[in-house]
Amino acid sequence: MNHSEPLFDAAPWDVDADKLREECGIFGVIGPRDAAAITALGLHALQHRGQEAVGITSFDGHEFYSRRGIGHVAQNFSSAEALAELPGIMAAGHVRYSTTGGSGLRNVQPLFADLATGGFAIAHNGNISNAMHLKRDLVQKGAIFQSTSDTEVIIHLVATSRYPTLLDRFIDALRLVEGAYSLICMTPEGMIACRDPLGIRPLVMGRIGDTYVFASETVALDVIGAEFVREVEPGELIEVSLDGKLSTTRPFGNPAARPCIFEHVYFSRPDSVMGGESVYEVRKAIGRELAREALAEADIVIPVPDSGVPAALGYAQESGIPFELGIIRSHYVGRTFIQPSDGARNADVKRKHNANRAIVQGKRIVLIDDSIVRGTTSLKIVQMMRDAGAAEVHMRIASPPTEHSCFYGVDTPERSKLLAARMDVQAMAEFIQADSLAFVSIDGLYRAVGLQGREAKCPKFCDACFTGEYPTRLTDLGERDQPQLSLPVEKVA
Amino acid sequence: MNHSEPLFDAAPWDVDADKLREECGIFGVIGPRDAAAITALGLHALQHRGQEAVGITSFDGHEFYSRRGIGHVAQNFSSAEALAELPGIMAAGHVRYSTTGGSGLRNVQPLFADLATGGFAIAHNGNISNAMHLKRDLVQKGAIFQSTSDTEVIIHLVATSRYPTLLDRFIDALRLVEGAYSLICMTPEGMIACRDPLGIRPLVMGRIGDTYVFASETVALDVIGAEFVREVEPGELIEVSLDGKLSTTRPFGNPAARPCIFEHVYFSRPDSVMGGESVYEVRKAIGRELAREALAEADIVIPVPDSGVPAALGYAQESGIPFELGIIRSHYVGRTFIQPSDGARNADVKRKHNANRAIVQGKRIVLIDDSIVRGTTSLKIVQMMRDAGAAEVHMRIASPPTEHSCFYGVDTPERSKLLAARMDVQAMAEFIQADSLAFVSIDGLYRAVGLQGREAKCPKFCDACFTGEYPTRLTDLGERDQPQLSLPVEKVA
Amino acid sequence: MNHSEPLFDAAPWDVDADKLREECGIFGVIGPRDAAAITALGLHALQHRGQEAVGITSFDGHEFYSRRGIGHVAQNFSSAEALAELPGIMAAGHVRYSTTGGSGLRNVQPLFADLATGGFAIAHNGNISNAMHLKRDLVQKGAIFQSTSDTEVIIHLVATSRYPTLLDRFIDALRLVEGAYSLICMTPEGMIACRDPLGIRPLVMGRIGDTYVFASETVALDVIGAEFVREVEPGELIEVSLDGKLSTTRPFGNPAARPCIFEHVYFSRPDSVMGGESVYEVRKAIGRELAREALAEADIVIPVPDSGVPAALGYAQESGIPFELGIIRSHYVGRTFIQPSDGARNADVKRKHNANRAIVQGKRIVLIDDSIVRGTTSLKIVQMMRDAGAAEVHMRIASPPTEHSCFYGVDTPERSKLLAARMDVQAMAEFIQADSLAFVSIDGLYRAVGLQGREAKCPKFCDACFTGEYPTRLTDLGERDQPQLSLPVEKVA
Amino acid sequence: MNHSEPLFDAAPWDVDADKLREECGIFGVIGPRDAAAITALGLHALQHRGQEAVGITSFDGHEFYSRRGIGHVAQNFSSAEALAELPGIMAAGHVRYSTTGGSGLRNVQPLFADLATGGFAIAHNGNISNAMHLKRDLVQKGAIFQSTSDTEVIIHLVATSRYPTLLDRFIDALRLVEGAYSLICMTPEGMIACRDPLGIRPLVMGRIGDTYVFASETVALDVIGAEFVREVEPGELIEVSLDGKLSTTRPFGNPAARPCIFEHVYFSRPDSVMGGESVYEVRKAIGRELAREALAEADIVIPVPDSGVPAALGYAQESGIPFELGIIRSHYVGRTFIQPSDGARNADVKRKHNANRAIVQGKRIVLIDDSIVRGTTSLKIVQMMRDAGAAEVHMRIASPPTEHSCFYGVDTPERSKLLAARMDVQAMAEFIQADSLAFVSIDGLYRAVGLQGREAKCPKFCDACFTGEYPTRLTDLGERDQPQLSLPVEKVA
Repeated sequence: MNHSEPLFDAAPWDVDADKLREECGIFGVIGPRDAAAITALGLHALQHRGQEAVGITSFDGHEFYSRRGIGHVAQNFSSAEALAELPGIMAAGHVRYSTTGGSGLRNVQPLFADLATGGFAIAHNGNISNAMHLKRDLVQKGAIFQSTSDTEVIIHLVATSRYPTLLDRFIDALRLVEGAYSLICMTPEGMIACRDPLGIRPLVMGRIGDTYVFASETVALDVIGAEFVREVEPGELIEVSLDGKLSTTRPFGNPAARPCIFEHVYFSRPDSVMGGESVYEVRKAIGRELAREALAEADIVIPVPDSGVPAALGYAQESGIPFELGIIRSHYVGRTFIQPSDGARNADVKRKHNANRAIVQGKRIVLIDDSIVRGTTSLKIVQMMRDAGAAEVHMRIASPPTEHSCFYGVDTPERSKLLAARMDVQAMAEFIQADSLAFVSIDGLYRAVGLQGREAKCPKFCDACFTGEYPTRLTDLGERDQPQLSLPVEKVA
Repeated sequence: MNHSEPLFDAAPWDVDADKLREECGIFGVIGPRDAAAITALGLHALQHRGQEAVGITSFDGHEFYSRRGIGHVAQNFSSAEALAELPGIMAAGHVRYSTTGGSGLRNVQPLFADLATGGFAIAHNGNISNAMHLKRDLVQKGAIFQSTSDTEVIIHLVATSRYPTLLDRFIDALRLVEGAYSLICMTPEGMIACRDPLGIRPLVMGRIGDTYVFASETVALDVIGAEFVREVEPGELIEVSLDGKLSTTRPFGNPAARPCIFEHVYFSRPDSVMGGESVYEVRKAIGRELAREALAEADIVIPVPDSGVPAALGYAQESGIPFELGIIRSHYVGRTFIQPSDGARNADVKRKHNANRAIVQGKRIVLIDDSIVRGTTSLKIVQMMRDAGAAEVHMRIASPPTEHSCFYGVDTPERSKLLAARMDVQAMAEFIQADSLAFVSIDGLYRAVGLQGREAKCPKFCDACFTGEYPTRLTDLGERDQPQLSLPVEKVA
Repeated sequence: MNHSEPLFDAAPWDVDADKLREECGIFGVIGPRDAAAITALGLHALQHRGQEAVGITSFDGHEFYSRRGIGHVAQNFSSAEALAELPGIMAAGHVRYSTTGGSGLRNVQPLFADLATGGFAIAHNGNISNAMHLKRDLVQKGAIFQSTSDTEVIIHLVATSRYPTLLDRFIDALRLVEGAYSLICMTPEGMIACRDPLGIRPLVMGRIGDTYVFASETVALDVIGAEFVREVEPGELIEVSLDGKLSTTRPFGNPAARPCIFEHVYFSRPDSVMGGESVYEVRKAIGRELAREALAEADIVIPVPDSGVPAALGYAQESGIPFELGIIRSHYVGRTFIQPSDGARNADVKRKHNANRAIVQGKRIVLIDDSIVRGTTSLKIVQMMRDAGAAEVHMRIASPPTEHSCFYGVDTPERSKLLAARMDVQAMAEFIQADSLAFVSIDGLYRAVGLQGREAKCPKFCDACFTGEYPTRLTDLGERDQPQLSLPVEKVA
Repeated sequence: MNHSEPLFDAAPWDVDADKLREECGIFGVIGPRDAAAITALGLHALQHRGQEAVGITSFDGHEFYSRRGIGHVAQNFSSAEALAELPGIMAAGHVRYSTTGGSGLRNVQPLFADLATGGFAIAHNGNISNAMHLKRDLVQKGAIFQSTSDTEVIIHLVATSRYPTLLDRFIDALRLVEGAYSLICMTPEGMIACRDPLGIRPLVMGRIGDTYVFASETVALDVIGAEFVREVEPGELIEVSLDGKLSTTRPFGNPAARPCIFEHVYFSRPDSVMGGESVYEVRKAIGRELAREALAEADIVIPVPDSGVPAALGYAQESGIPFELGIIRSHYVGRTFIQPSDGARNADVKRKHNANRAIVQGKRIVLIDDSIVRGTTSLKIVQMMRDAGAAEVHMRIASPPTEHSCFYGVDTPERSKLLAARMDVQAMAEFIQADSLAFVSIDGLYRAVGLQGREAKCPKFCDACFTGEYPTRLTDLGERDQPQLSLPVEKVA
């Protein structure tokens, strides 16, 4: 059904359009008097994980309250009026970049349902790779779906489970589900945070006094003044009751974890700590690896701002070539403008990234970017450097070639649109018109996160976008389309 | 759960606030190229039956499309853009005055669900008097409700029925339901219109060429240029397939009908024909009965506009007392204004109904209104007449005293707020400060609709608001609160 | 200059589109604590005089405050927030139907300027017939116009007058102005109300205790609970100081008055009293004149609601033919709908005015309307009556044929669009497809307002729309276009 | 008068609140087919000069068109609909940070008036320091002001000038004006760009083929693909006719120029070239001067992003201390959030600037910022560094202490709010709780822009905010408040 909601501004923020895109950030807090205000701040710190829509649900001991909106957290949850609609000492929220399910308000999370066991709210980061199969079965049995979100499948599995308690129903439901999920749920008893057995998507736990906090990244803890306690473990399910008691279980056995390595490359904020490593330091280390693997003879190192900056600093420090801001990024992005018909080549790129001509002119430059997806933006950036008088342009990329789609909650173009799936590095260099092009190696990337390199038998991360080895079944794809799987073995603890 | 939708204008149209209020109007059409445009016009003609929200769902042979909004039909469905979202040759719509279920957009009908049998849309006029009981059972079995509307119970009953075909599931569902319902449904096969076994709420069928139309009142047929075919019979279920074939069944046996008599008194538009009688002529006949039963010695007959006008004309013609517009009604009502602190007694009533002082001054007047609910407005109108210089004010009411609540889709205050439930006619006269007050008798009302009077054993109408005799069980009320029932006997056809 | 304001809803309310249209209503009050709230109520009662835009300016003894909006008074001034922006004990407001000057917010009155003598606000009902000539001179001297409204000319004349006091400057300005004007102005000293020498447009004075009120019609006094004191006399200028002192002057000599007779026919509300006569009674009297001048042999008298109702009552009482509501008017008008392509003849008329078929069928009817402008609506109404089964349709019009345009603040189509300017009565009857058509005579109209008939030499009203005799010069029209003038002689008091 | 416009979002973007703030950016183009689209792009590149409101006026050879809005360029001028309202081959626009004149839409520029010589539009960057005196005189003579902007004074002086041609009137007007102004004007003949005799505010000229462009900064030329031609000279007036002819005059004699030095420190974008110097290189040079004048013993150099980055790079390169991103700036700023009551110290600063704890912990840091205004933000940033574990915090500021207010179009707090006006450097260090604090010297600043140092007798820049020596009279301040003036001597060319 094509539900035409009242018209919302589609908010087509075009920031760095040619990137992979994390699709969600989640945040939950249990304990404080103004749970919703804290959740709004926490979600704001996770805004880079989803800019299209935002929702917060709170619980005041009696009733659940919910408010959702299109756009940024600050546009929807910065007023006292908005927060007054969300009383209570427990709240969870979600920022979302549109993926499965279209972009109507009814797909904005947290989703909520009144079950026989009471109210149930759920916020989900990830993607369920057998959602279509499960949904078909549920509808046959009389389930009526309100949204087109894969997350709603979990709610219906909980609602129709035959176990008596909510917790058993919830575990029963998750056992049927495959794919990636970090979840923050609320029931009238308290909050449940859990992470899929491989821990593909991140989830951390923090604390302020007696208040527990869960969030996709540590930066959300910093902003609200919480201390970092630890990560929610892959396969772990943590319950916090309304009176502050915490208990933990591991209902899904003990497979070896496979967290997403792209969080280190691009998704996470540089001031977050992920898997025990500073994201900023890892990115600098990638830059150093790049300098060792692919040094260019050049006068200056220029980052493509902002995501290329840490790797460029690492590259500059390792190579001794000076770091300079050869591209200035505007803070005022907003909607795409109508292009004037007469001239103004690449005006749309320039209004976000403008060459600092005085620096670039006559120089041999190393350009550092975090990744290449379709390659269209890279081409424009290289052109812009040449228009500004660069003598040579050597592009260095702080990740291996992105050759495969992600099915775990990251927005990737179809494989056929990925530049690295279509051509080799030499052809890519010609496509983007660079004098040279190099990517960090997959082993270099693993070294930057502190390992010896990639263990082919048992890699420590999900790196399917680079290697094509997927750590779960992908049921909804259909049998013929199944890519190479790299299913994890049970860990011997 | 308290879903805080984005802010909508609460549209507190204050038109004739002290009235009983029909809660819904429904309209459906199958056949024409621009079904949604016809539905918008038809709903506009039924706007008096519900001003708070409006929705239309259409079907183009492949997909269902839906659009809903707060406010009037003209505010939501008069633009080409709005209609362009609703393609197809079948459409159904609903205007609603908020009743069961609060006023968020998610309660705006038609409701829609993707069932295992395909899409299913439903628009409902009436009220299901065992909805809470049914809902409790459904939630136990895992059903997740999207709205708080009683109508959604029908959808879940259909979704979980064990019959294979949609039609059997639908009949199965309705057999579990008690109360009042006129329904217009859409499936991928066509349209279903049906009316509860007693036919409490109205539903008529019309036709333009090969196009079938269903509507709450005949006025909707007039406006779109359709001819009136007949009423949908109480207990009848009519199917029209997408290729225009019509079939009819009576799945609920054959009880004697009990349509709502208040439709003649107030709810329906005077230019509608209901149960074979012109509503305008019935109202004039009530006025004539009133003149015979309760003649007042007076100089002029003044209607409380607009609903009192036909009865006042009847009263004037029967009594020979001249009919005059002693109260002028403004077309520009809108929101309640802030009252100035200095003075302006009853300014809020006056901005809608102003005394025509030049006519009223020094006269003995008969004021004709259709009904008295709480009595507060009647008091203000009588005061306004005296302030304008009326010598005597004799109030005559074109219905019997409204002593009981309605549970069949009419918005009535709690019984304790009904003036007639709290005092006798003499006390009511004093309360509203009239020189005299009289109501038409229940037999007079039945005579005005063309009968001999009310047959106590087997009344031809639902008149529970006057008599307290309810024609169905009222399960949700609880056993202790059960009023006197007057359940219908099976008709011997 | 084409100032594109932010987008406002154009609010194309299509109420009775084929009518002449009063262009403004004005209201002012000085004295009470909540002047703006009273002004909002007063303007609401004058809403029929202008539905496109509304503004209120207030003064709190120190500063002027202003708020303007597109749409109805209730949409813009019913909230506490709106009124909180308008503090003070003096306020004036204006409702406007778009005329001279386009429809941007900057033309919404009251207009305001900071003059050397202090703040000056002005609300104007009427039209200045030499505005273009005056504006050209002012711009030559360096005046910068903010609006395209003719009213702004008055402000610039005041600003550049060489007299020292505001009052002298104001009189100096008005002496240069020709045409029709009723004005309510505010200065830091108090309120000024005045009316052009012929009193073409109405203005009345009322009182609540120490509070003085000025308004276009008495109905605004009724709604706020003020007593009617008297009309502002043609050519009179009344000042009320902030401490409540009232003084009056007649700076423009003493010509014989010529108030607009169409106020009685259509513009004013029936519950207003104008020139000492009840508008309702005058309209009934016109109906009686019509019955005497042009009796039709018929079964029922049907008004075109609502403006035709009083004349139809008069016609019915005089003729003895029964009055019936053969046309039902919907309260829910709003925007024009998209017409379905298949069928629905005249759906757009029907959604406002629907035939009461049960009454009309088989009858010979007299239809009473107040006027015919273009004739297009009359044609549709006649067709609708025939479609509903009327045996004969006799149209009777409660004014003489409208043959000429108005230049005094009434929205009239170009003369070539006026049906009566294009054909004689017989041809008009054919055009609207009536069995017969008659208009009241000009003398009949004068008799209905209580005179003997029209005195050709010295008519007591401006009736230029019927007779073409204009009581002022029309400078902006240019010499060649000057119609027949009927300039007033100085009255010998 | 307090004009309450319809409610606009006040857009209280809180980006780097404790900064001096350039108040306007202007842009104009004459020649191309889609002048308004180019102007929108150009203004977008100048968005950092004013975020509160934006307006564009265009001319199509016959008429002027205007559109204005609250908020950013992208919010108001990115749609085809918006640009369709602005046809023509000449356009000028303005971005504004609210200063003189309040923030209603009527103060949004370009201002426009229909003069006797034809239409006249004006966009102004700067501030007229005798505007109040001039306005008083104009109102005495009958001028009516529409806005409270100082710029409107220029229009009225033009309107009332006795010279016959627009150009003579315009020069006549500017001779009466004192203060700072860069202006772009449009008449039916073409475009006029001019700069006050001292050239206090910037204005540059560019070219694309036959199209001339004027803009506040060169970055606007880059974005639209125009080449830089030269600066508009201080005291120069350039006319470009609609057929592309350019002529230039110097009507105000030949005083020595005094452009604003703070443009180099903070206002301009680093990728602009101003007075022949790369802004980015000047800022790096200031950082080098700072390192030479005030070296700190530290482990890392951290910029306060983004404005402190170039100076920090210069400081790091000169001192050899590594440059690191110890503070991460969020791209998602938006409205201030409601602060939770429990905890979250400095959450409002942190949501924009978060410590990169992994980098900062245990380090002695040099923090580089461009300036200190009130000092409140500096204090919070220092606290944030300590909370993140910094061992020592040495603050270095890339400008001299800001001790004086600006009266030339820069938003400065009252002098009493300026930290440097209230205490010496030692006390400031204690106030912001830094271990040490140093500012670059005024001579160091002049060296960074390529001079030998500041020539006390004849300084080459306006540096009044640092030195208190104002280069023009400040008439509106009143005689007693006159600060020290440093009026320029006539240049001997």
